[in-house]
Amino acid sequence: MDAVNLDAMLARIADHWSPKRIAQINDYDVRIVKVQGEFTWHQHADTDELFLVLAGQLTIQLRDRDVVLGPRELFVVPRGVQHCPRADTETAVLLLEPSSVVNTGDAGGDRTAQVETLA
Amino acid sequence: MDAVNLDAMLARIADHWSPKRIAQINDYDVRIVKVQGEFTWHQHADTDELFLVLAGQLTIQLRDRDVVLGPRELFVVPRGVQHCPRADTETAVLLLEPSSVVNTGDAGGDRTAQVETLA
Repeated sequence: MDAVNLDAMLARIADHWSPKRIAQINDYDVRIVKVQGEFTWHQHADTDELFLVLAGQLTIQLRDRDVVLGPRELFVVPRGVQHCPRADTETAVLLLEPSSVVNTGDAGGDRTAQVETLA
Repeated sequence: MDAVNLDAMLARIADHWSPKRIAQINDYDVRIVKVQGEFTWHQHADTDELFLVLAGQLTIQLRDRDVVLGPRELFVVPRGVQHCPRADTETAVLLLEPSSVVNTGDAGGDRTAQVETLA
Protein backbone atom coordinates (compact mmCIF):
# COMPACT_ATOMS: atom_id res chain seq x y z
CA MET A 1 0.00 0.00 0.00
CA ASP A 2 1.10 3.54 -0.68
CA ALA A 3 0.06 6.74 1.00
CA VAL A 4 -3.51 7.72 0.16
CA ASN A 5 -4.27 11.36 -0.55
CA LEU A 6 -7.87 12.16 0.36
CA ASP A 7 -8.21 14.94 -2.17
CA ALA A 8 -6.82 12.86 -5.03
CA MET A 9 -9.34 10.16 -4.14
CA LEU A 10 -12.22 12.63 -3.88
CA ALA A 11 -11.35 13.97 -7.32
CA ARG A 12 -12.16 10.53 -8.74
CA ILE A 13 -15.71 10.50 -7.38
CA ALA A 14 -18.44 11.87 -9.61
CA ASP A 15 -21.54 10.33 -8.07
CA HIS A 16 -23.42 10.97 -4.86
CA TRP A 17 -24.31 8.67 -1.96
CA SER A 18 -22.04 5.87 -3.20
CA PRO A 19 -19.20 5.27 -0.72
CA LYS A 20 -15.81 4.14 -2.04
CA ARG A 21 -13.37 2.10 0.03
CA ILE A 22 -9.95 3.76 0.25
CA ALA A 23 -8.35 1.75 3.04
CA GLN A 24 -8.97 -1.23 5.29
CA ILE A 25 -7.94 -1.68 8.91
CA ASN A 26 -8.54 -5.28 9.87
CA ASP A 27 -12.21 -5.85 9.03
CA TYR A 28 -13.09 -2.15 9.00
CA ASP A 29 -13.32 0.13 5.97
CA VAL A 30 -12.36 3.74 5.52
CA ARG A 31 -14.75 4.99 2.88
CA ILE A 32 -15.21 8.38 1.26
CA VAL A 33 -18.39 9.64 -0.28
CA LYS A 34 -19.76 12.75 -1.90
CA VAL A 35 -23.30 13.62 -0.93
CA GLN A 36 -25.90 16.22 -1.82
CA GLY A 37 -29.56 16.36 -0.95
CA GLU A 38 -31.24 14.04 1.52
CA PHE A 39 -30.55 10.33 1.99
CA THR A 40 -32.86 7.71 3.49
CA TRP A 41 -33.83 7.18 7.12
CA HIS A 42 -32.13 4.00 8.29
CA GLN A 43 -30.19 2.39 11.09
CA HIS A 44 -27.42 -0.14 11.50
CA ALA A 45 -28.57 -2.55 14.18
CA ASP A 46 -25.16 -4.09 14.85
CA THR A 47 -22.64 -1.31 14.51
CA ASP A 48 -21.70 2.27 15.24
CA GLU A 49 -20.82 4.45 12.23
CA LEU A 50 -18.41 7.37 12.12
CA PHE A 51 -18.85 10.43 9.89
CA LEU A 52 -15.97 12.90 9.42
CA VAL A 53 -16.63 15.85 7.12
CA LEU A 54 -13.80 16.64 4.69
CA ALA A 55 -15.46 19.50 2.82
CA GLY A 56 -18.88 21.14 2.89
CA GLN A 57 -21.47 20.66 5.61
CA LEU A 58 -23.36 17.56 6.64
CA THR A 59 -26.50 17.49 8.74
CA ILE A 60 -27.07 14.14 10.40
CA GLN A 61 -30.75 14.15 11.19
CA LEU A 62 -31.62 12.07 14.24
CA ARG A 63 -35.17 11.52 15.43
CA ASP A 64 -34.76 14.00 18.29
CA ARG A 65 -32.22 16.50 16.94
CA ASP A 66 -29.89 17.44 14.12
CA VAL A 67 -26.12 17.18 14.33
CA VAL A 68 -24.41 19.64 11.99
CA LEU A 69 -20.84 18.90 10.94
CA GLY A 70 -18.40 21.17 9.11
CA PRO A 71 -14.92 20.28 7.88
CA ARG A 72 -12.75 18.53 10.49
CA GLU A 73 -15.79 17.66 12.58
CA LEU A 74 -16.91 14.11 13.31
CA PHE A 75 -19.80 12.29 14.89
CA VAL A 76 -20.49 8.66 15.71
CA VAL A 77 -24.04 7.43 15.16
CA PRO A 78 -24.53 4.66 17.72
CA ARG A 79 -25.81 1.29 16.62
CA GLY A 80 -29.56 1.08 16.38
CA VAL A 81 -30.08 4.84 16.10
CA GLN A 82 -32.20 6.00 13.18
CA HIS A 83 -30.45 8.66 11.12
CA CYS A 84 -30.82 10.45 7.80
CA PRO A 85 -27.89 12.45 6.42
CA ARG A 86 -28.57 15.63 4.46
CA ALA A 87 -26.35 18.14 2.67
CA ASP A 88 -27.60 21.33 1.07
CA THR A 89 -24.49 21.65 -1.09
CA GLU A 90 -22.07 18.98 -2.30
CA THR A 91 -20.24 17.65 0.73
CA ALA A 92 -17.37 15.18 1.10
CA VAL A 93 -17.43 12.76 4.01
CA LEU A 94 -15.09 10.10 5.36
CA LEU A 95 -16.86 7.08 6.86
CA LEU A 96 -15.46 4.49 9.19
CA GLU A 97 -17.38 1.29 9.77
CA PRO A 98 -17.10 -2.47 9.51
CA SER A 99 -16.51 -3.69 5.96
CA SER A 100 -19.84 -5.50 6.06
CA VAL A 101 -21.91 -2.33 6.43
CA VAL A 102 -24.43 -1.47 3.71
CA ASN A 103 -25.08 2.24 3.24
CA THR A 104 -28.85 2.01 3.59
CA GLY A 105 -28.71 -0.20 6.70
CA ASP A 106 -32.08 -1.77 7.46
CA ALA A 107 -33.92 0.39 4.92
CA GLY A 108 -32.62 -1.16 1.70
CA GLY A 109 -34.09 0.20 -1.50
CA ASP A 110 -32.66 1.59 -4.71
CA ARG A 111 -30.08 3.80 -3.00
CA THR A 112 -28.27 0.75 -1.70
CA ALA A 113 -24.75 0.97 -3.17
CA GLN A 114 -22.06 -1.57 -3.84
CA VAL A 115 -18.84 -0.38 -2.26
CA GLU A 116 -16.13 -0.09 -4.89
CA THR A 117 -12.48 0.10 -3.91
CA LEU A 118 -10.43 3.04 -5.15
CA ALA A 119 -6.80 1.95 -5.36
CA MET B 1 -22.30 12.41 22.11
CA ASP B 2 -21.94 15.75 20.40
CA ALA B 3 -20.03 16.67 17.28
CA VAL B 4 -16.28 16.55 17.82
CA ASN B 5 -14.15 19.31 16.31
CA LEU B 6 -10.66 18.02 15.57
CA ASP B 7 -9.01 21.40 15.96
CA ALA B 8 -10.68 22.11 19.28
CA MET B 9 -9.46 18.74 20.52
CA LEU B 10 -5.94 19.30 19.20
CA ALA B 11 -5.81 22.62 21.02
CA ARG B 12 -6.13 20.73 24.29
CA ILE B 13 -3.05 18.58 23.69
CA ALA B 14 0.25 19.90 24.99
CA ASP B 15 2.35 16.73 25.08
CA HIS B 16 3.91 14.59 22.38
CA TRP B 17 3.53 10.90 21.57
CA SER B 18 0.57 10.47 23.93
CA PRO B 19 -2.58 9.60 21.96
CA LYS B 20 -5.96 10.81 23.24
CA ARG B 21 -9.21 9.02 22.50
CA ILE B 22 -11.79 11.32 20.91
CA ALA B 23 -14.34 8.79 19.71
CA GLN B 24 -15.15 5.10 19.76
CA ILE B 25 -16.73 3.00 17.03
CA ASN B 26 -17.61 -0.36 18.47
CA ASP B 27 -14.32 -1.60 19.96
CA TYR B 28 -12.16 0.73 17.88
CA ASP B 29 -10.72 4.08 18.96
CA VAL B 30 -10.25 7.28 17.05
CA ARG B 31 -7.25 8.89 18.71
CA ILE B 32 -5.39 12.10 18.02
CA VAL B 33 -1.78 12.75 18.91
CA LYS B 34 0.82 15.46 18.52
CA VAL B 35 4.27 14.21 17.68
CA GLN B 36 7.73 15.65 17.17
CA GLY B 37 11.06 13.90 16.85
CA GLU B 38 11.43 10.16 16.49
CA PHE B 39 9.39 7.47 18.24
CA THR B 40 10.39 3.85 18.92
CA TRP B 41 10.61 0.97 16.46
CA HIS B 42 7.75 -1.38 17.22
CA GLN B 43 5.02 -3.51 15.69
CA HIS B 44 1.47 -4.54 16.51
CA ALA B 45 1.31 -8.28 15.97
CA ASP B 46 -2.47 -8.55 15.92
CA THR B 47 -3.74 -5.42 14.21
CA ASP B 48 -3.38 -2.96 11.40
CA GLU B 49 -3.02 0.71 12.37
CA LEU B 50 -4.17 3.75 10.41
CA PHE B 51 -2.37 7.11 10.41
CA LEU B 52 -4.06 10.21 8.95
CA VAL B 53 -2.09 13.45 9.11
CA LEU B 54 -4.11 16.49 10.20
CA ALA B 55 -1.27 19.05 10.21
CA GLY B 56 2.47 18.94 9.61
CA GLN B 57 4.33 16.03 8.06
CA LEU B 58 4.81 12.49 9.32
CA THR B 59 7.42 10.05 8.10
CA ILE B 60 6.51 6.46 8.85
CA GLN B 61 9.81 4.65 8.68
CA LEU B 62 9.45 1.03 7.62
CA ARG B 63 12.39 -1.37 7.46
CA ASP B 64 12.56 -1.15 3.66
CA ARG B 65 11.30 2.38 2.92
CA ASP B 66 9.85 5.57 4.29
CA VAL B 67 6.24 6.64 3.80
CA VAL B 68 5.86 10.43 3.98
CA LEU B 69 2.42 11.83 4.79
CA GLY B 70 1.25 15.43 4.59
CA PRO B 71 -2.14 16.79 5.64
CA ARG B 72 -5.10 14.77 4.35
CA GLU B 73 -2.88 11.80 3.59
CA LEU B 74 -3.24 8.43 5.27
CA PHE B 75 -1.44 5.12 5.47
CA VAL B 76 -2.24 1.78 7.07
CA VAL B 77 0.65 -0.07 8.69
CA PRO B 78 -0.22 -3.76 8.36
CA ARG B 79 -0.14 -5.99 11.39
CA GLY B 80 3.28 -7.36 12.20
CA VAL B 81 5.17 -4.69 10.25
CA GLN B 82 7.91 -2.89 12.14
CA HIS B 83 7.55 0.87 11.98
CA CYS B 84 8.94 3.99 13.58
CA PRO B 85 7.15 7.33 13.12
CA ARG B 86 9.20 10.51 12.88
CA ALA B 87 8.28 14.18 12.52
CA ASP B 88 10.80 16.96 12.05
CA THR B 89 8.32 19.61 13.18
CA GLU B 90 5.28 19.30 15.42
CA THR B 91 2.71 17.21 13.57
CA ALA B 92 -0.87 16.28 14.38
CA VAL B 93 -2.08 12.79 13.52
CA LEU B 94 -5.37 10.93 13.73
CA LEU B 95 -5.03 7.23 14.56
CA LEU B 96 -7.57 4.51 14.07
CA GLU B 97 -7.03 1.18 15.76
CA PRO B 98 -8.64 -1.27 18.18
CA SER B 99 -9.18 0.20 21.65
CA SER B 100 -6.78 -2.39 23.07
CA VAL B 101 -3.76 -1.08 21.14
CA VAL B 102 -0.78 0.22 23.11
CA ASN B 103 1.23 2.94 21.37
CA THR B 104 4.58 1.17 21.70
CA GLY B 105 3.25 -2.21 20.54
CA ASP B 106 5.69 -5.02 21.31
CA ALA B 107 8.49 -2.64 22.27
CA GLY B 108 7.14 -1.36 25.58
CA GLY B 109 9.41 1.01 27.50
CA ASP B 110 8.98 4.42 29.05
CA ARG B 111 7.21 5.92 26.04
CA THR B 112 4.25 3.64 26.58
CA ALA B 113 1.28 5.95 27.17
CA GLN B 114 -2.05 5.49 28.86
CA VAL B 115 -4.78 6.59 26.49
CA GLU B 116 -6.85 9.36 28.07
CA THR B 117 -10.26 10.25 26.71
CA LEU B 118 -10.93 13.84 25.68
CA ALA B 119 -14.64 14.51 26.05
